[in-house]
Amino acid sequence: MADEVQQTPKRGRRPGGTDTRAALLAAAREVFSEQGYDGATVRAIAARAGVDAAMVNHWFGGKDALFGEAVLQLPFNPKEIIAHLLEGGVDDLGSRIIRTFLTNWDVQGGGVFAALIRSVAAHEQVAHALRDFFLKNVFAQLAGTVADDRPELRANLVASQMIGLGVVRYVAKFDPLAESDVETLVRAIGPNVQRYLTGALD
Amino acid sequence: MADEVQQTPKRGRRPGGTDTRAALLAAAREVFSEQGYDGATVRAIAARAGVDAAMVNHWFGGKDALFGEAVLQLPFNPKEIIAHLLEGGVDDLGSRIIRTFLTNWDVQGGGVFAALIRSVAAHEQVAHALRDFFLKNVFAQLAGTVADDRPELRANLVASQMIGLGVVRYVAKFDPLAESDVETLVRAIGPNVQRYLTGALD
Repeated sequence: MADEVQQTPKRGRRPGGTDTRAALLAAAREVFSEQGYDGATVRAIAARAGVDAAMVNHWFGGKDALFGEAVLQLPFNPKEIIAHLLEGGVDDLGSRIIRTFLTNWDVQGGGVFAALIRSVAAHEQVAHALRDFFLKNVFAQLAGTVADDRPELRANLVASQMIGLGVVRYVAKFDPLAESDVETLVRAIGPNVQRYLTGALD
Repeated sequence: MADEVQQTPKRGRRPGGTDTRAALLAAAREVFSEQGYDGATVRAIAARAGVDAAMVNHWFGGKDALFGEAVLQLPFNPKEIIAHLLEGGVDDLGSRIIRTFLTNWDVQGGGVFAALIRSVAAHEQVAHALRDFFLKNVFAQLAGTVADDRPELRANLVASQMIGLGVVRYVAKFDPLAESDVETLVRAIGPNVQRYLTGALD
């Protein structure tokens, strides 16, 4: 099922192949969540993955790129999630976006989201990564497929609602939104996201 | 006009009266914006205001309370802004919220918003202050006045949209939302905020 999150690979010392890459991604998600962008060192991430620190440069080119792929893209592959979201049709897309994101974020306990927000406020390059992964690869693709006009603004508007939802539910933990069940929020927020994608904005 | 922001008081050494309080608030806004919550010291804020550091405890009780009042409440007094927002009637309230907040935030250049987001991700007590000032004093008051049901959830939903809007416009600076004029965003977002306040959520 496309709604399922990817399993964290088992740890342990690995050869220099593609499972090293997967182990580094899993370790990076954990260490960035625990330490934030600044606190997470390449050395600590490599140690968590059980590989040499040089593997980070080999597979990702550096800490920024590893952060982008591990944290911002998580917990899904953009191409897969877009295909999944679109295959249900356009009319209910807003509700499907809320359901899919909250289901995945809830599994993470919001730790990754907190790391993202903490980092984006402090680092210009993380804002760029957020644009690339979260906006360009997901919401801009969706808006470009379903919107009649101004897909870029629509993608920005959807992102504003999704980011604010994440901050309120996982970081600021406002009550009752932080404790509301997913389907309550799907009904409350889904139509607003739908309007951003396909409604009249004037 | 209620939409006007308060002017920053002139600096200089002051007596221990209420203008010391105003000077500390103005200095705190500047120093928190520049340094974030952690980096901003009570000593630096007092020095910027031209008063003794003991005045912070005298007037605010400490750094947390000064942050809450200076940064989270800024650029408005909650009671004044609620009266201003409500006096235009309920039907157009969502649009009036967007117009009023963006007009005030734009004047600040978003620096205060970035400081807020940076701080709320790192400090549990700042999340509490955000709840008290931004949610309880503003959006919960509005929702409690105009909503037929579930005013607390509605206030949370409005807050999620406003916080996400601030992050996207001032912190992550997504294009084109960061450069859109206020009235374009009033038309795009106002109806969504209105639905959160007075629409059907099921």
